[in-house]
Formats: sequence, C-alpha cells, structure tokens
Amino acid sequence: MNLRAAAIAANIPIISDQVSAFLAVQLALIKPRQILEIGTAIGYSGALLLHYSAAHLTTIELDDSRYRQACQNFADLGLNERVTALLGDADQLLAELVGRRYDLIFIDAAKAHYLDYFKMAERLLSENGVIIADNVLLRGYLAGEPHIRRQRTANGRMNDFIDYAGQHQAFETALLTIGDGVLISIKKN
Amino acid sequence: MNLRAAAIAANIPIISDQVSAFLAVQLALIKPRQILEIGTAIGYSGALLLHYSAAHLTTIELDDSRYRQACQNFADLGLNERVTALLGDADQLLAELVGRRYDLIFIDAAKAHYLDYFKMAERLLSENGVIIADNVLLRGYLAGEPHIRRQRTANGRMNDFIDYAGQHQAFETALLTIGDGVLISIKKN
Repeated sequence: MNLRAAAIAANIPIISDQVSAFLAVQLALIKPRQILEIGTAIGYSGALLLHYSAAHLTTIELDDSRYRQACQNFADLGLNERVTALLGDADQLLAELVGRRYDLIFIDAAKAHYLDYFKMAERLLSENGVIIADNVLLRGYLAGEPHIRRQRTANGRMNDFIDYAGQHQAFETALLTIGDGVLISIKKN
Repeated sequence: MNLRAAAIAANIPIISDQVSAFLAVQLALIKPRQILEIGTAIGYSGALLLHYSAAHLTTIELDDSRYRQACQNFADLGLNERVTALLGDADQLLAELVGRRYDLIFIDAAKAHYLDYFKMAERLLSENGVIIADNVLLRGYLAGEPHIRRQRTANGRMNDFIDYAGQHQAFETALLTIGDGVLISIKKN
C-alpha cells in the first residue's frame, strides 16, 4: 500500500507491520460487518481494516486537512462505497451514533481521550463486539512531547484507561507490547 | 491458579501473564468446542485453555512423569471430564487423530518439531480453525542450551517454521513479540 510511504514521509503515525499482521488475524476471527474507527488520520489504518474484512467502515477525524487527504485516499483506492468518513469532534459524533452497533471499534486518536472513547464505545458495541486501541504505551507520543509535566499527565491518563479496560467485568482484555502497545477488549456473553 | 507456583518451583516453562491474557481474548473470539494441545507439560496451559472456554481438551505429552502430574492436576481442578490426556509420541498420536477436527490447536512442545506439528495440525483443523504456537522466539529455550551449533540448528528450524506459516496462502498469520514469542494462524475461508 503506497499510503504507507506517504504517511511516513509526512510524519503521520501509522500502524507497525506487527500490528498490521495482528489486525489481519483479528479481523479474520471477528468477521465484522460494521467497523467504527476513531481517528482516521489519512486513511491508512482504515484501508487496512477494509482490506482484511468485508465490513463497512465509519471513521471519524477532527483535522480538516487530514480528513480531506483521507477522503482522497479512499477514493483513489476505490473504497468510497465502503466508507462513511465523518469530520468533527469525536465526543459529539459518537453521541450522534448512539443506537447504532459496531462489531469492531478501533481507537487510534487523541491519547488523552482514550478512556472517554472507550466508555462511549461500550454503548456502540454489538454482542461479542471488540474494541482495539492502538498506541496505548505512548512511546511515540511522548517522544515528541518535551514537557515532563504533560508527559506525566498523559501517562496518568493512559494508565487510567488501561486500568479501566483491564478491570471491566463485562470485557476480556489483553494489553500487548507490540508496536507502541495495543489493547484488545472483547465484550463477554 | 496455584499450578503456576508449582510450575515455577519445578522450573517447568509456563505461559507468561501477557500470553495468558492474549489467549483469554482469543478464546472468547474463537469460542472453540474442541481444542488440541501438543505439549501438556503439567497441565497449566491446558487448565487455562479450559478456564477461558467451554471446550473439550485433547492434550498430548511425551514425558511419563509430567503426564502423570498433569492428570493429577486436572483431577484436582475438577477438569477430568473435559480432558482427554494422551501419553506418547506426538507424531504417532497426531496421525491417529486424523479424521477428527479441532477449532484450536495449541503447540507448546519440542521446539525442533514445530514445523512438523504445524503441518500435521493443518489436517486436523476445522473450518476457520486457529493454530497458536507458543515460545517461537526461543529465548528461554536457547538460554539453557550451551552448544552454539545446537542453538543455530534450533534457530534455523524455528525460522523454517515461521517462514512456512507466514507464507502459507491458506492462513492469515501474525508473529507477536509477547512472552517468548507467539505465532497465531487462522485458516482463511
């Protein structure tokens, strides 16, 4: 996928090879019909989620320039009919989606909000639905953050998220040290 | 599970916490009815596979002392009715199982034979069945092996196995750097 090279050139975080392979296997297991992605970026992860599934993708992006780049990339890849790309604030857009059900919700957005996103994702998940969150170990994020106080705040918030997901009785959760850290939670019966 | 402490005390390799959590999530996704395990050891991984599923477990062990310890542990845990424990050579026992179908095959046995086991597992897998192999990165194994030539042979064999699984067109495969390395392959439709 040449999106990968474009993303690397533009310094836009993309999914590592190991995480890609992990997602491919999880998609073969989950067989999602509807996927929700929080954090489109330029559409690389979305294209990957579609490549390894037969799903429809609803994807949310806050940044106008990235949103337009992603729409162009989805069009170039012939994926338009399988994608609903939404521009705006995730909190607001997720609230508007209540009532819909997604088999897989992929979180790869503003790190400080992962706990909020997870809580909103809970309400949007189908039976046996799966939440996957990427970059939960914050290495790449903290590397670009020179302020120690902000680093500590970010770490604290991410730990709150990981604790919440890990201790949630309705989910089976694993934290995997692949890529920059992947958390996977499946809603139990 | 106090099997864990017993295994650590006896220097018997057991599954890491991260791999346990990963298996728990995969079992919730796979929902296996029949599991085949190659390498019972003292039954810790088998008990874990049963704890996180409603499956029946068929498990194979070569070493008589470990086999007996495992049978005792399964009995102590009240798991006897869910386990068929077999003592003997995996090649021979796997050949005798041909015709049966397993939804999950867990390989955690003699490292030099992983490729053979994978090839035999292919024939025993149900539709959309999953093969998971533990300890494929050989760290723990090589740590106890003083002979460089044997280390290289072991590494070469494991690489052959990883290449074979990774390039197999009928499977989606991921190699994960969790624990001492986990390979997961799902049979594609």
